[in-house]
This record gives sequence, structure tokens and C-alpha cells, in this order.
Amino acid sequence: MIQREFRISPKPRGFHLITREVEEALPELTELSVGVLHLFIQHTSASLTINENADPSVRVDFESSFDTLVPENASHYTHTTEGPDDMPAHLKASLLGSSISIPITNGRLNLGTWQGIYLCEHRDQAGARSFVATVSGE
Amino acid sequence: MIQREFRISPKPRGFHLITREVEEALPELTELSVGVLHLFIQHTSASLTINENADPSVRVDFESSFDTLVPENASHYTHTTEGPDDMPAHLKASLLGSSISIPITNGRLNLGTWQGIYLCEHRDQAGARSFVATVSGE
Amino acid sequence: MIQREFRISPKPRGFHLITREVEEALPELTELSVGVLHLFIQHTSASLTINENADPSVRVDFESSFDTLVPENASHYTHTTEGPDDMPAHLKASLLGSSISIPITNGRLNLGTWQGIYLCEHRDQAGARSFVATVSGE
Repeated sequence: MIQREFRISPKPRGFHLITREVEEALPELTELSVGVLHLFIQHTSASLTINENADPSVRVDFESSFDTLVPENASHYTHTTEGPDDMPAHLKASLLGSSISIPITNGRLNLGTWQGIYLCEHRDQAGARSFVATVSGE
Repeated sequence: MIQREFRISPKPRGFHLITREVEEALPELTELSVGVLHLFIQHTSASLTINENADPSVRVDFESSFDTLVPENASHYTHTTEGPDDMPAHLKASLLGSSISIPITNGRLNLGTWQGIYLCEHRDQAGARSFVATVSGE
Repeated sequence: MIQREFRISPKPRGFHLITREVEEALPELTELSVGVLHLFIQHTSASLTINENADPSVRVDFESSFDTLVPENASHYTHTTEGPDDMPAHLKASLLGSSISIPITNGRLNLGTWQGIYLCEHRDQAGARSFVATVSGE
């Protein structure tokens, strides 16, 4: 079992492909024949998901679609002191989730051809984000 | 690998912080230097997520926001015999998910400062909920 | 650690119970006393979730509800060249997720009485879908 903590520098609000940054943080992956990577984000207003790695328009539409699904300034919000983007950020984070798990096969992440890892940044002005990656394998 | 099954007593409909109850059900956590906790809820109308552990207003807004996102009595529902809260409960359970996985580091859950575990109770009159916790680590 | 890749034949758009197909792909499950199954789908327009295994009307209502939550032809979509069902399929896939993890106890998946595994097919005309199942246990 290998565990590494790392940070990713601040990103603008939106959906960002980070597959390469994750792989670079985990050089030991290449030594495993079979395993699972558990990637965890230690925040409640950013999240992780897996989706299309090719056409950037998918990530643009993720941002507009999640903004439509979870609007700012809904009249029923009571948690409003941290800004209009804060409560929607918490909701989006739980809809997408704090972690992803990916199989490892023959020294690499066994993603489908079109799959990539997204860092979903839900805040307008976020700092760097912290991650814990735990790999179990052999 | 350690596995424990436990129950949490009935909760009212809404979002409830259960981090302490989970930790108390798993005294072996303190002995692990590195690992992953997989926590699974054995129900289809309650779910698990990780979100803000401090201000209770976040949990209040989760309840009203998920009620808005997944309304009761939608005209297209056909599964209506178990009450107006039942079909929305199934949908909310899948939007949030039946399990969470959390890294373990130096004998404790390696959550971010503001992260806690939520039991999301989607039924009006639920009984106790059953969980299976599986810890892999060393 | 056991890992198997397998395919499931094309399904119509909608939500399909595949618990039995998954168990049949993993005959080694019966030999484990404790473990976790990680099931991963290698696609970005289909997904996995756990929900009610009994009344088929739940799966019918999942389809109509996700179609309502994530509509086709939203005016803000820019990723439209692959058909009106494509961008909604990506969004639904991330709302539900690319993988599920299920505890293994005494040689079987330790699901609740009413829980089953759903293959969520979000495309109108999909091909077979590819999965990677990784079991860690003892």
C-alpha cells in the first residue's frame, strides 16, 4: 500500500482535466501489475469525477449545466455568509463526490479510451487543493 | 483487512453528521499507519456523502436543495405505492451514493479540516440503518 | 487481489439490473471471507449505481427522472455534434459515477436485501460496455 499527499495549484472555477498531474504524482504505479488507486480531495467545495478527456466543450458544458442544476442565490439557502458561490459549491461537491477509484492494470491506470480525471472547482476564488492518493496493489 | 457491521439508530429525514459514530465503531483504525476505509450503507433510500462539518446551516440547505432537485409527487412517477417520499428517496440515494471511501493515515481518517461524514436520510419515517465498514491497511 | 475485465452486451437506454451478470463474472468471490469489490465502467456515457432490485417501476422512474434533471437540447450546450443524447449522457454519468464498491462477506456481495447493481445506459444506441472488476480480500 502506497500513500502520497500532494497539492494542485489554484484553478479557475470550472472543470479541469488532471489525469497527467495525478499520474506524475504516483511514479510507483508503473511497478504494479494489478491494483486500485483511491484519489481523495480534502475539501468540501471542490470535487472529483471521471469524464470525457478529448473535446474541451464537454468541460464547458459541465460548468454551465451544474450552474443550472444548482443555482446561486436560491431563496431557500440559509448558509449565505461565505458568498453566493459557497452553498452551491457544497452541493455540487456532494453530487459529484470527494473521491474516485480507478483500477490499475499492468503498470497504468486502466481508464477507458475517452476517460480522464476531472478536478471540479466550484469556488470563484479557490486556493490550491490538497489530495490523498492511496494505491493498493501488487 | 477488518470488517465490521453496525447500525445507527433512526434519524429524522435530513442530513446528519456521523463522523464520530463511525470512528467509534472502528477502534482498530488507530493501529493502522496507512489504509482506506470503505463505508457502505445497505439501503436504497438513505445514502452517504462527505461535506461541511461545522455550520449546521449547510445540512439544512442540503435538505431543502435535494427536495427541490428531486421533488415529491412528480407527475411522471409510476412507483408511488410506498408514499410520496419513497421514489425521491431512491433517486437521492443514487445521486449521493451508497458508499464513501476515506484514506487512513497515522491511525486516523485523513479527512480535510472541514470534512465530515453525512448520513443522508431520505425517508420521513425510517428505522435504524445498517452499515458495513471494511478497512484495508497496514 | 483478483482482477477481471468483461463486457456486457448492448442494452437499450435506461436502467438495468446486472447483479447476476457481475456475480457470474467473478466466481472467485465465493472463496473470500472478507473483501471489497471495485467495479469500474470504462465509458463516459454510461454509469453504475446501486438501487432497488425488486419493483421494475423504480428503474422506469429513474429513466424519466434523470431525463428531467438533465434535459436534452438545453440551450447552453455547446457539445452537440454527437447527437442530443450525448452531452446529457456525460452529465448523467458523472452524477451517478463510473464505479461502485461493495463489501464482500463470507463469499458473497454483502448487499442489503433490496439492493442491486444498475447499469445506467444513457445513450440511445450504445454498443457493448466494458468493465474492470478488482477484488481485494482474503
